[in-house]
Amino acid sequence: MSEVTVADVERAARRIAGRVRRTPVVEGPPGLVYKLEFLQHAGSFKARGAFNRILAAREAGEPGPAGVIAASGGNHGLAVAYAARALGVRAEIFVPEVTGPVKVGGLRDLGAHVTRTGAVYSDALLASRKRAAESGALEIHAYDHPHVIAGQGTLGAELLEQTGGVDTVLVAVGGGGLIGGVTLAVAGRAKVVAVEPRLCPTLHEALAAGRPVDVPVGGVAADALGATRLGELAFSIVRDRVESVLVEDDAIAEARRELWRTHRIAVEPAGATALAAVTAGAYTPAPGERVAVILCGANTDPATLLA
Amino acid sequence: MSEVTVADVERAARRIAGRVRRTPVVEGPPGLVYKLEFLQHAGSFKARGAFNRILAAREAGEPGPAGVIAASGGNHGLAVAYAARALGVRAEIFVPEVTGPVKVGGLRDLGAHVTRTGAVYSDALLASRKRAAESGALEIHAYDHPHVIAGQGTLGAELLEQTGGVDTVLVAVGGGGLIGGVTLAVAGRAKVVAVEPRLCPTLHEALAAGRPVDVPVGGVAADALGATRLGELAFSIVRDRVESVLVEDDAIAEARRELWRTHRIAVEPAGATALAAVTAGAYTPAPGERVAVILCGANTDPATLLA
Ligand SMILES: Cc1ncc(COP(=O)(O)O)c(C=O)c1O
Ligand SMILES: Cc1ncc(COP(=O)(O)O)c(C=O)c1O
Repeated sequence: MSEVTVADVERAARRIAGRVRRTPVVEGPPGLVYKLEFLQHAGSFKARGAFNRILAAREAGEPGPAGVIAASGGNHGLAVAYAARALGVRAEIFVPEVTGPVKVGGLRDLGAHVTRTGAVYSDALLASRKRAAESGALEIHAYDHPHVIAGQGTLGAELLEQTGGVDTVLVAVGGGGLIGGVTLAVAGRAKVVAVEPRLCPTLHEALAAGRPVDVPVGGVAADALGATRLGELAFSIVRDRVESVLVEDDAIAEARRELWRTHRIAVEPAGATALAAVTAGAYTPAPGERVAVILCGANTDPATLLA
Repeated sequence: MSEVTVADVERAARRIAGRVRRTPVVEGPPGLVYKLEFLQHAGSFKARGAFNRILAAREAGEPGPAGVIAASGGNHGLAVAYAARALGVRAEIFVPEVTGPVKVGGLRDLGAHVTRTGAVYSDALLASRKRAAESGALEIHAYDHPHVIAGQGTLGAELLEQTGGVDTVLVAVGGGGLIGGVTLAVAGRAKVVAVEPRLCPTLHEALAAGRPVDVPVGGVAADALGATRLGELAFSIVRDRVESVLVEDDAIAEARRELWRTHRIAVEPAGATALAAVTAGAYTPAPGERVAVILCGANTDPATLLA
């Protein structure tokens, strides 16, 4: 297992500069600041890891003509398809059936070859691996790769710069790429709190078991946070360094509506999951604590927002 | 007619600091920067003028127990209702029938007393004036008042600070409060381009006639840009200083979809009108020109976005 360090995050920031957006922050309710990462190319932070992974591979002469391949609940796939198009590389994306039409349509619009197979992400991953073995395409893992984690970490470094520092960062977790990178980037400077739907508790269960374990995944955010098992690399980074809280699906839906009501921000359920920890009281900031909430994705049909 | 100057904008900025959000900017396509003013309290820039007007009146011992009264296509009313609630003042809002249920519902949620009357804004304005004469409430005009214009101008000053300067600012126009304030704030530092729907051409026709004249108003943005006549104060500011372009309703709808597609930003038609000037070719930036586009409002049902 490769190591990943804060130096990798710094290298990633230089590598992807100009390819990804520096997404702004805006004040939320007193004590909260929102990182508007849903403004990122392809609608989520995943563009950071995707660009870093493909650009780093290029430095090593990859990928070949077979291009890149990825399995994804949707957002990672969109980001890989976006980055591949920007870099002139062929992209093949495997998504599970839980992935909705907005994401599948978006993938096709980006020119990716899309295969929909299996019930959840882990099924699509197996299918993509089989295909990669045949085609020779470069696999872009959605979270368990040092370059992906380092790319996602650039968000944490940017956040500290923009805010002049915060006490705490709330991060939604699927396979752990985002929280792994952010934890490296802010280590020693801010506390990191992992927020997961009770129905997708990969990090929570990994901490309880002392190692990543398979968990059942479901609920409103499963198309983004529904990795069956936390990544090994992410686990090695976060195991002694983050606090873990769970939120109900209702709280996620309410946080989503709240973001629309107070800021006219339209995120997908995963994008409102970190905020739900505060609005539903799963995480209560201390008086004077400055908390950053990462609004990480908005690949959703806006019509579902107020439904 | 009272004068309004850049010093009034500076005073407004001090007066409303901490009451309104400093809305961030984000890069758009090459050469464009978006000012995300739809993140403002109550969903549009109108909160700036509303706070400045009410706070300035307070310095003069107003308003009395009858509170404030305003006529509005919706956004000004929402902003007045928001500011009044924040300042503990009673608010009565008159809206025309063109104003949709999202805005009316929002007004009620803010605790305002709402009267829906007349076909367009100018009808609601007449009704509100009659009522103000009876009740003694302080009238908060939607655009033709020095404190309202100065408040809106704070957006322009903020934009220059945040971007380190731009060459051009594209501004959607209804009664002219926003463009009046922004023109004062950026005078001598950036060019201002007025963008209006062909179906709501108040500024365009005022420039043609050499004075504000009544125009028929309609189309997709009429609930926000549908002032029948440009304000006198705004006209005196902009007459020799802005360029005017018109856009079709289709171009506005397309710009709105484009903002969603590229940035997951969900604005109302008026909020996409300035961008439509670029996407539809009504305004073509010169090579290297740095253009700021004000995304000024998002009081819309997100379900209508991709419809
Ligand atoms: C919007 C959004 N937020 C959070 C996550 C979780 O990221 P990770 O799998 O790196 O933990 C994802 C993953 O797809 C996502 O799409
Ligand atoms: C979203 C939005 N943009 C632009 C305008 C135009 O502003 P003004 O009437 O100050 O010209 C309005 C007015 O209501 C608005 O609501």
